[in-house]
Amino acid sequence: MNLSTLMFGRRLANREHEDKKIGWVEAVPAIGLDGLGSSSYGPEAALTVLIPLGALGLVYIGPVMGCIVALLAILYFSYRQTLSAYPTNGGAYVVAKENLGEYPSLLAAAALMIDYVLNVAVGVSAGVGALVSAIPSLHPYIVPLCLAIVFVVMLANLRGTGEAGSLFALPTYLFIICFLGAIAYGLVGLGLGEKAPVVAPPPLGPAAQGATLWLLMHAFASGCTAMTGVEAVSNGMGSFRQPVMRNAYFTLTIIVVVLGLLLGGVATIATAFEIGAMDQTREGYQSVLSQLLAAIAGHGAFYYIAMASLLSILCLSANTSFVGFPRLCQMVAADGYLPKAFAQPGRRLVFTAGILFLSGFAALLLIAFGGITDNLIPLFAIGAFLTFTISQAGMTQHWRRRSRRYGAKLAINSVGAVSTAAALVIILIAKFAEGAWITLVAVPVAIAVLKMIKSYYISLQRELRKPGPITLEDIEPPTVLVITEAWNRLSERAIKFALTISPDVVAVHFIRLGGPDREEGEKALREKWRIDVEEPIAALGLRPPRLMLIPAPYRQLHQPLLRLVEKLDADSPERRVAVLIPETVKDRWWQKLLHMNRAGRLRTKLVKLGGPRLTVATVPWRLYREEPPPA
Amino acid sequence: MNLSTLMFGRRLANREHEDKKIGWVEAVPAIGLDGLGSSSYGPEAALTVLIPLGALGLVYIGPVMGCIVALLAILYFSYRQTLSAYPTNGGAYVVAKENLGEYPSLLAAAALMIDYVLNVAVGVSAGVGALVSAIPSLHPYIVPLCLAIVFVVMLANLRGTGEAGSLFALPTYLFIICFLGAIAYGLVGLGLGEKAPVVAPPPLGPAAQGATLWLLMHAFASGCTAMTGVEAVSNGMGSFRQPVMRNAYFTLTIIVVVLGLLLGGVATIATAFEIGAMDQTREGYQSVLSQLLAAIAGHGAFYYIAMASLLSILCLSANTSFVGFPRLCQMVAADGYLPKAFAQPGRRLVFTAGILFLSGFAALLLIAFGGITDNLIPLFAIGAFLTFTISQAGMTQHWRRRSRRYGAKLAINSVGAVSTAAALVIILIAKFAEGAWITLVAVPVAIAVLKMIKSYYISLQRELRKPGPITLEDIEPPTVLVITEAWNRLSERAIKFALTISPDVVAVHFIRLGGPDREEGEKALREKWRIDVEEPIAALGLRPPRLMLIPAPYRQLHQPLLRLVEKLDADSPERRVAVLIPETVKDRWWQKLLHMNRAGRLRTKLVKLGGPRLTVATVPWRLYREEPPPA
Repeated sequence: MNLSTLMFGRRLANREHEDKKIGWVEAVPAIGLDGLGSSSYGPEAALTVLIPLGALGLVYIGPVMGCIVALLAILYFSYRQTLSAYPTNGGAYVVAKENLGEYPSLLAAAALMIDYVLNVAVGVSAGVGALVSAIPSLHPYIVPLCLAIVFVVMLANLRGTGEAGSLFALPTYLFIICFLGAIAYGLVGLGLGEKAPVVAPPPLGPAAQGATLWLLMHAFASGCTAMTGVEAVSNGMGSFRQPVMRNAYFTLTIIVVVLGLLLGGVATIATAFEIGAMDQTREGYQSVLSQLLAAIAGHGAFYYIAMASLLSILCLSANTSFVGFPRLCQMVAADGYLPKAFAQPGRRLVFTAGILFLSGFAALLLIAFGGITDNLIPLFAIGAFLTFTISQAGMTQHWRRRSRRYGAKLAINSVGAVSTAAALVIILIAKFAEGAWITLVAVPVAIAVLKMIKSYYISLQRELRKPGPITLEDIEPPTVLVITEAWNRLSERAIKFALTISPDVVAVHFIRLGGPDREEGEKALREKWRIDVEEPIAALGLRPPRLMLIPAPYRQLHQPLLRLVEKLDADSPERRVAVLIPETVKDRWWQKLLHMNRAGRLRTKLVKLGGPRLTVATVPWRLYREEPPPA
Repeated sequence: MNLSTLMFGRRLANREHEDKKIGWVEAVPAIGLDGLGSSSYGPEAALTVLIPLGALGLVYIGPVMGCIVALLAILYFSYRQTLSAYPTNGGAYVVAKENLGEYPSLLAAAALMIDYVLNVAVGVSAGVGALVSAIPSLHPYIVPLCLAIVFVVMLANLRGTGEAGSLFALPTYLFIICFLGAIAYGLVGLGLGEKAPVVAPPPLGPAAQGATLWLLMHAFASGCTAMTGVEAVSNGMGSFRQPVMRNAYFTLTIIVVVLGLLLGGVATIATAFEIGAMDQTREGYQSVLSQLLAAIAGHGAFYYIAMASLLSILCLSANTSFVGFPRLCQMVAADGYLPKAFAQPGRRLVFTAGILFLSGFAALLLIAFGGITDNLIPLFAIGAFLTFTISQAGMTQHWRRRSRRYGAKLAINSVGAVSTAAALVIILIAKFAEGAWITLVAVPVAIAVLKMIKSYYISLQRELRKPGPITLEDIEPPTVLVITEAWNRLSERAIKFALTISPDVVAVHFIRLGGPDREEGEKALREKWRIDVEEPIAALGLRPPRLMLIPAPYRQLHQPLLRLVEKLDADSPERRVAVLIPETVKDRWWQKLLHMNRAGRLRTKLVKLGGPRLTVATVPWRLYREEPPPA
């Protein structure tokens, strides 16, 4: 049991892939946290835009949230159709690739990837922001707290999606029960005519201006952040166990219904109890959900439990990205648009490269912005709505290519495509100056990078392609150059191996010193070589290996060696050259400090600079694990 | 012309070694800065201890500095003898090794190494401290300034000692001229009876206590820091050009005479003008040399030029360590007590590893102490005096072993040994509580590490030793396993090479997928293999390579491969096994990101975990530089 096993669990076999998939119970916490967490900042964002209207704002919050809930309902039915049409993976990338072509699919991929990275940064910093406003003494530790949460979520996901789901199940279901319960209790109370809040929310300010279409558009655009996370189920299809469709439907339904109920309930109760958003920068700030809970249930134990569950799911809402991003990258990498490493399942059958990249990039964003990523929120809704629109447009195309029987389905996806496109346009216009333009720069850059990677792989494949059978000119054994530093058991092994693969063996010894000692040393070496190597081998009737002494005046071995190889190549072009480098294998880190790694460096240089006819081999000697040394 | 050539200069050949050596003109700045810089803090340190005596302290500073100058004179004559007895290298390590044995030499080596590292940290932070007190707005940048200076000195020394000497010549000679000139001018003035200082130093405080032996011992111990750096010439012998002795004598003489004149002059003038040390922590602090210059010459342009030269040589006094430390480490490493890398001359024939280690360790100390290393000063004199004593004791032994003719020389070194040992005892007692005890811990730890390294190399040598001639059992060609991912030009090359070294070639293909696709894929692969490889090779009358499909259920290739090797070894113990891994050579960093480096990782694992009979070779394919791909 080593450290990695302790941290990540044992290595899983390919056939265990099915066992690690998840049902809807784990999927709601694993995939749904982004969607559910949105219920806290969606209404808050819309109400914040309405602050200038004062109490008048409450007249409009109902209709604005109504539009959003209606859009959510349209999206729900649209995505149900996507799931049933693409039961293995219904992400926008796949739908766009199959129905719309390369560039739309890359657009979807780029938008989704940016969205996922932003979701981690924004989610974690929002959660930590809430935590810090609850416990102000934590304020100096915002960045370390953010990084710690990213690290925990990363570790949970490196163990596996199921593990993350189980780990996050308690706060998720607690959150659902607390908030749906509170809203139901509040609505029942309102129905029974109890109009007085338990703890009254702070009074709303006076109206500073009248309602304009621009303001309402802005409120709608801000409220739309509540809908990010809905596409997550379609991207996470690969993680569901059998019956896949049932698990996916259940998960999507739970997420959307809970989100819809929360949004609708919050809007209704806020209107009834006259709850508005407060200025975050002022002292005494309370979030809309905090005011709402207090109005319904007072500041008792329930309030604190519910708020703690909200805080937990905000912090953990990053997990949605950890489910979707690596799977998306795997598909994109399998198509050659991302490095192959993203397509390689790791120790626990999760896509390690994607998880590490996502964590690293989000951590960089969090460090760069000091853990305060409010400015990134506008960018974030755009990615989501771009994805929605492309996915629905793809589905429209999907149905159109089929027969007329699918008229109803076509209609649903068309409504979805048109309405999300309309919302996208509204968001783009309303949020353009606030940073939405950054997305318009980042997405094309990302697409260009993806295309460049693809073209590298295409040229690589062309370079390596071998049409037809092997072409064999001759199979003359190579001239084998054995690098020898001294006559010891290491060089003995290398010479012995060289003799098994070729009769033409040359031992190469580098001379580094100059001066009068040099000649004497050379003579002694040649004599030792004659007695210890040449004569015994000649006695067996074999061609003895020659000893060549080569000066290395610049203390670099590869240059004189490459010159020698060139000369040998010119002298006998029919023989290739192979270089054998004896190498001691170091088991421990401190052994590496005590050895020069001359073998490794020489090998790297030769491989890099040698001609196409050169082969480089290392003959390993495992220190203290081979035959015992002679007494 | 690439970046390294620009930064470090072109790579030098071994025969250029002599050209890079230095004469006394370059040696004084390169080696002497530590010794010359000492003149600023030695008297200051002694006077600081005397502060409690008030004006009475001036009575004692003369005798205290007199003792120190006398000790310096003894040391000068002692070291002259050492230089002439050991003209190639007269460092304490060599002298102790030749005359006193292993442990004294390791004691000298450990003391010197610690001393050199401390000298860099203390010198640089003292220089930056002086700079910051001159320009207070630099205060927030103490650590970056320290690191920048270490970096500049490191870079200069990576280019070569001569380059560092030339670079630092101007401030060094300017310092010598300014201060010797000022002191001569002051002394002449005093001789002519001008008793009034140009700018009067601040009045000395009242006597808080009377002079005690303890206080005077303490003043002497503090003043002895002025003598660090005297041993540097003996350690730097290897860097002098012909005539070595003359250059070494000149350098030693200049350093010691200038230092002696400065110490004596400062003491005399300070007594005459009533200059004492001031409390560094109080506002309006001025160093002793600053008060002295102002008293002699006023606050004119000369004052600023002289102070600037002092500041420069303080900052650069670290350079002495950069000359001595790498040469010391080279000798210790050549004897096997330090990693071999320390004995390897780099691109510019300097000992790169030693320079980098010294810079890194000093930088760590500077960062750890925030650039304020005052507390390390007591440690620092101990290393120097320990070295003096061992070196002189070794010389005593050296002369005693020879005939009686050397009685005078024996006497001089004996006086040196006894007086430095006495000074060492005084320093140890006076400074014990201030941190001198740390040296008593650090030195034995360093010696233990040196001994452990030596014992590793001894056991390594025993492990690798091959007494007698080669023992050749059989030269049966090995079974060659060629790793093939797909049939392409990469695997074609590897198969072709395999056929040249052995008739027994097996192509190994790993199967990672399970399920129904697998069988179909396997069949297609076998068919392609038969047509493209087996049949053409059989047609040439050769044994065609078999194709083995091996499942890799855990996505790691080395485990199934090692199992196969074990099986082959058991089946035919007379044949060794060689694994050939085809590898694409990546020229650019971004190519590494786009490839999985599966070849490299497999190679590392096989070399580490394979048995002694396994050889691992890579067959390189240089992307885009080999034959053009087929049209």
